[in-house]
Amino acid sequence: MKAEKIPDIIIGRLPVYLRALQRMADSGLKTTSSQELGEHVGISAAQIRKDISQFGDFGKQGTGYSIAYLLDKLREILKVDRIWDVALVGAGDIGHALANYQGFKDRGFRITMIFDSDKSKVGQKIGNFTVEDAEMMIEKVKAAGLKIAMLTVPASEAQGVADKLIQAGVRAILNYAPINLNTPHNVKVQYIDPATHLQRMTYYL
Amino acid sequence: MKAEKIPDIIIGRLPVYLRALQRMADSGLKTTSSQELGEHVGISAAQIRKDISQFGDFGKQGTGYSIAYLLDKLREILKVDRIWDVALVGAGDIGHALANYQGFKDRGFRITMIFDSDKSKVGQKIGNFTVEDAEMMIEKVKAAGLKIAMLTVPASEAQGVADKLIQAGVRAILNYAPINLNTPHNVKVQYIDPATHLQRMTYYL
Repeated sequence: MKAEKIPDIIIGRLPVYLRALQRMADSGLKTTSSQELGEHVGISAAQIRKDISQFGDFGKQGTGYSIAYLLDKLREILKVDRIWDVALVGAGDIGHALANYQGFKDRGFRITMIFDSDKSKVGQKIGNFTVEDAEMMIEKVKAAGLKIAMLTVPASEAQGVADKLIQAGVRAILNYAPINLNTPHNVKVQYIDPATHLQRMTYYL
Repeated sequence: MKAEKIPDIIIGRLPVYLRALQRMADSGLKTTSSQELGEHVGISAAQIRKDISQFGDFGKQGTGYSIAYLLDKLREILKVDRIWDVALVGAGDIGHALANYQGFKDRGFRITMIFDSDKSKVGQKIGNFTVEDAEMMIEKVKAAGLKIAMLTVPASEAQGVADKLIQAGVRAILNYAPINLNTPHNVKVQYIDPATHLQRMTYYL
């Protein structure tokens, strides 16, 4: 099985399956079917079976999937069977919300550093964190070997910060700044921009 | 031209083009090419030309696109040549950040109401807003004729709140709760869940 062979669109659905399966497990369910999972995530049973079968034979004909087993396998495939340390850059409103968010730790991530270039924010406490000077970012991210960062800086600063993070060894960026980033092919970027999401829906109104 | 005929994946790229074109306009540019736009958004020139040509003939062979004209057309197509009033449900950290976010108004949206079911938050001021009791939500959203809502409530409450919003006439939901919503076919949902986005990238690390 070669990683390169699985289309990115399938990879994008796996976290959604994982999330739904975790909720099923939390509610006490032990097994599920592609039909049932499909109803939870709004994806056809056939598509789910096809997606999951890319990685091996995880279900039994007639008895469906063991939720615990499928959870383990999906976590292993997505490499969230471990905890990834994450740098957060930008200590504004969204940065604060993310720093305080309790939903990362059960899903494979923890923020371990927060940076801002605004000297008035450096030294500020956010929950258990102290905001650090962005001038130290390359050095500290590199020393800690961080591969993942979240960017909540203004659009005008995002590309510059991304370039530095990449220089420091970061290979995955979750970008909240409303601007497209130019990055090398070995760096993954995901975008969160609420206005873009809203505009995608108004077309249909 | 029938709305139904344009694939959703194309509609999803239009807000990204719009955002990049707006930045070009802000920096003083008057015209652009599909090549140049492509470099800004990381999409091939051929794909951009194909996407835009779905809606008409907006460029001139050899001289490219007028940015102002293309901005107008894209805003018209996405129906953000107007301002949409939006209800925000959930006055937690993310709700606060969204209520204070300055990036909506230039892109077709303004939050006009904030609701929470937590009585200790009702009456609280967030910027210019006063948090209202979620018990009044259906009535107030219906009276105002709102079609769009943002959901920043806990996962356990999201489906119930979504059902009420739909009952009140909402047809587009931006859901920050980490759970899939079951909605009728005439209701659009977009999801923002940072852990899902991060897990989509760790696969490649």
